[in-house]
Amino acid sequence: MIRSPVLVDLDRLLGELDSLACFSDAPSPAVTRIVFTPADRAARSFLLERFWEAGLEVRQDAIGNFFARWEGLEPGLPAVATGSHIDAIPYAGRYDGTVGVLGGLEAIRALRASGFRPRRPVELIMFTAEEPTRFGVGCLGSRALSGALDPNTLARLRDADGRTLDEVRREAGYTAPLESVVKRPGAYAAFVELHIEQGPHLERSGVPIGIVEAIAAPAGLRVWLEGPGGHAGTVPMHERHDPLLSGARIALGVEAAVLQEGSEDTVGTVGVFDVHPGAINSIPRRVRLEIDVRDVDENRRDRVLARIRAAIHEAAGERGVHHRIEELYRDGPARSDAALLEAIEATCLELGIPFLRMKSRAYHDTVFMARLCPVAMIFIPCREGLSHCPEEYASPENIAWGVRVLAGTLARLASRGPWRGSRSP
Amino acid sequence: MIRSPVLVDLDRLLGELDSLACFSDAPSPAVTRIVFTPADRAARSFLLERFWEAGLEVRQDAIGNFFARWEGLEPGLPAVATGSHIDAIPYAGRYDGTVGVLGGLEAIRALRASGFRPRRPVELIMFTAEEPTRFGVGCLGSRALSGALDPNTLARLRDADGRTLDEVRREAGYTAPLESVVKRPGAYAAFVELHIEQGPHLERSGVPIGIVEAIAAPAGLRVWLEGPGGHAGTVPMHERHDPLLSGARIALGVEAAVLQEGSEDTVGTVGVFDVHPGAINSIPRRVRLEIDVRDVDENRRDRVLARIRAAIHEAAGERGVHHRIEELYRDGPARSDAALLEAIEATCLELGIPFLRMKSRAYHDTVFMARLCPVAMIFIPCREGLSHCPEEYASPENIAWGVRVLAGTLARLASRGPWRGSRSP
Repeated sequence: MIRSPVLVDLDRLLGELDSLACFSDAPSPAVTRIVFTPADRAARSFLLERFWEAGLEVRQDAIGNFFARWEGLEPGLPAVATGSHIDAIPYAGRYDGTVGVLGGLEAIRALRASGFRPRRPVELIMFTAEEPTRFGVGCLGSRALSGALDPNTLARLRDADGRTLDEVRREAGYTAPLESVVKRPGAYAAFVELHIEQGPHLERSGVPIGIVEAIAAPAGLRVWLEGPGGHAGTVPMHERHDPLLSGARIALGVEAAVLQEGSEDTVGTVGVFDVHPGAINSIPRRVRLEIDVRDVDENRRDRVLARIRAAIHEAAGERGVHHRIEELYRDGPARSDAALLEAIEATCLELGIPFLRMKSRAYHDTVFMARLCPVAMIFIPCREGLSHCPEEYASPENIAWGVRVLAGTLARLASRGPWRGSRSP
Repeated sequence: MIRSPVLVDLDRLLGELDSLACFSDAPSPAVTRIVFTPADRAARSFLLERFWEAGLEVRQDAIGNFFARWEGLEPGLPAVATGSHIDAIPYAGRYDGTVGVLGGLEAIRALRASGFRPRRPVELIMFTAEEPTRFGVGCLGSRALSGALDPNTLARLRDADGRTLDEVRREAGYTAPLESVVKRPGAYAAFVELHIEQGPHLERSGVPIGIVEAIAAPAGLRVWLEGPGGHAGTVPMHERHDPLLSGARIALGVEAAVLQEGSEDTVGTVGVFDVHPGAINSIPRRVRLEIDVRDVDENRRDRVLARIRAAIHEAAGERGVHHRIEELYRDGPARSDAALLEAIEATCLELGIPFLRMKSRAYHDTVFMARLCPVAMIFIPCREGLSHCPEEYASPENIAWGVRVLAGTLARLASRGPWRGSRSP
């Protein structure tokens, strides 16, 4: 065991969070950092230097995941890992993901500064493209790492400009075969991710630490609607096949399908509604919707999805609009490992920090790491539960508590010899 | 009078229509030519050379309208004018507007080649920005020319990048004060515009020429909707204020407001539906809708507008979404002059071409020219009534008939001495 609290350098960490937020395609305080854009690539360089500076050995895989390693006294044992992502959706905030990456780095630096020597290696992972913005599919890095996506599908993924993931990752300098990314189950002893809650639960409860027992199961659909278009003045109403109006019905149908379940845990959102050609005097020809549905209960989520599909068929059919549905992702929920939950709790008790157990309705790289090893997550509050927007904010005190709990947990886990976690389902 | 038919060089005209279609920001057969973009400016240069080549004297005003003049035997008499526009909305076709500009040029060339000498000057006008794409307001050139828009408002107009019309016209080389654009009523003796119908009426009737008695009254609204946004996974449904769902209700409300009138002549369209930030895992924060409503009956149109405004208030109010409505345009209908209608009819009878009288539900620069002088329009069929889309098509035969009727009409009108048309209301 180490003495606690560990020596967290909060100023350094906050400074790094500030610096990282500058690598952005949106004006501050908004952050836009789409995978493999110049902003993202510059942020990666910044991160790499911080990792080297901390004396960590860094490996990058073929999809751009970073693995920064602190060697253990018994290097042959599977590592204890932590990490998160640094990409950000358009006009997002500066804490989502980054707190887990730079906070993970600070946890390792603090443990070192405290004189701790890990028995097992400790690995900090920065995952590529947790956000689905560019390729429509989230958690690309952890998904690929865990073998949840075959390399052929991965190589075929295209962004809005029609460029493949394969092209853009090569352009960013990642040229090894995508097959090489996959790790085998058991490659890690444990994975613990530190993250802002992205919801209001902790703040409302006045508790600085959430210990995540389960992560909601997300599903994403992309819907293409198409009609003949035409001049907004000259085509009579009854001769129209307007895909925008079908899209409007679908958006309202998504809400209705979710509300029908009557559960607080079920959510559904239309976040993308793209109209072509998009001119005031032109009847739309093509509309693209992207729909996200989540629930901790996978069966309930799938009932909602079925209802949404029915609503799409009906909304397109009633107007003679052509439609096509693409399933972008449909992942199961992830459950945390009991032994890891206990390790986090024990750390909180030792530090005298209040905590509560909770579920995550946002989804995280942890969902995919659960395929490789026992997992758990540590949440800290964010103001008013706001996330994915420029107002996203986590207080320095809560960030510091999160890093201390993470450091303590990593120390506990990295001190253990071989053990069998109760693997998540 | 001249001998008929006049010597229309159809091959030359079709070649010029083809060439003009190349100045485009969309792949052929689509045409995108937004006012004062490089594509539009290149098209203007092309046009200028054709006008010079035809021996016409060309003047450009401060908003970029072109006036190509064929001097009359009595230069002091007000000119007989024709013309149209060359700008094109995104992914439009190649005939909307251009048939009136290049067809007008060919009519003048044909009259000259036939040995005709006009008593009055004949003027061919290319109007700037008939399409509202860039600045949200259509018929900018003819609107300014007719004094229907005060120069201060005109100077304040902004495009989506926040650039003013004043900036972009100066960049395109038009630097004189905007006040200088305005013409006085009576500046022209008559204005006759040749245009594709943009609707299916003529084709279905099997008639090559439509003589337009009235043009529908258009109105345009821009609606801004705003909510707090947030993470698509973590904000419970009942805590959301989703502007996209309000926008969906409004779009359906526009359709309902129009259908309630039960008139074939009433149309309403949501052509723009912009979502910010537009990411699958983000609740939208801002939505911008643009709504176009038209009717030949101004009172009926205004009833529909009132119903749409009520629908906007309700849709935003029920979800606690902030909203703002901007009226982009709200113009009266235009009626053609009886003497001009007779002149077109007489020409058709002389040429032995079938014609019918009709209304235009698309709106045209003629609406504003009606403030300056007697007006009328000549329509030719377009395939399946399609317009504002790449499939837009007018046959060479019908284009040739349109040009012959226009030439004959211009010759009749330009032969007359001073006359008082029954000015449109």
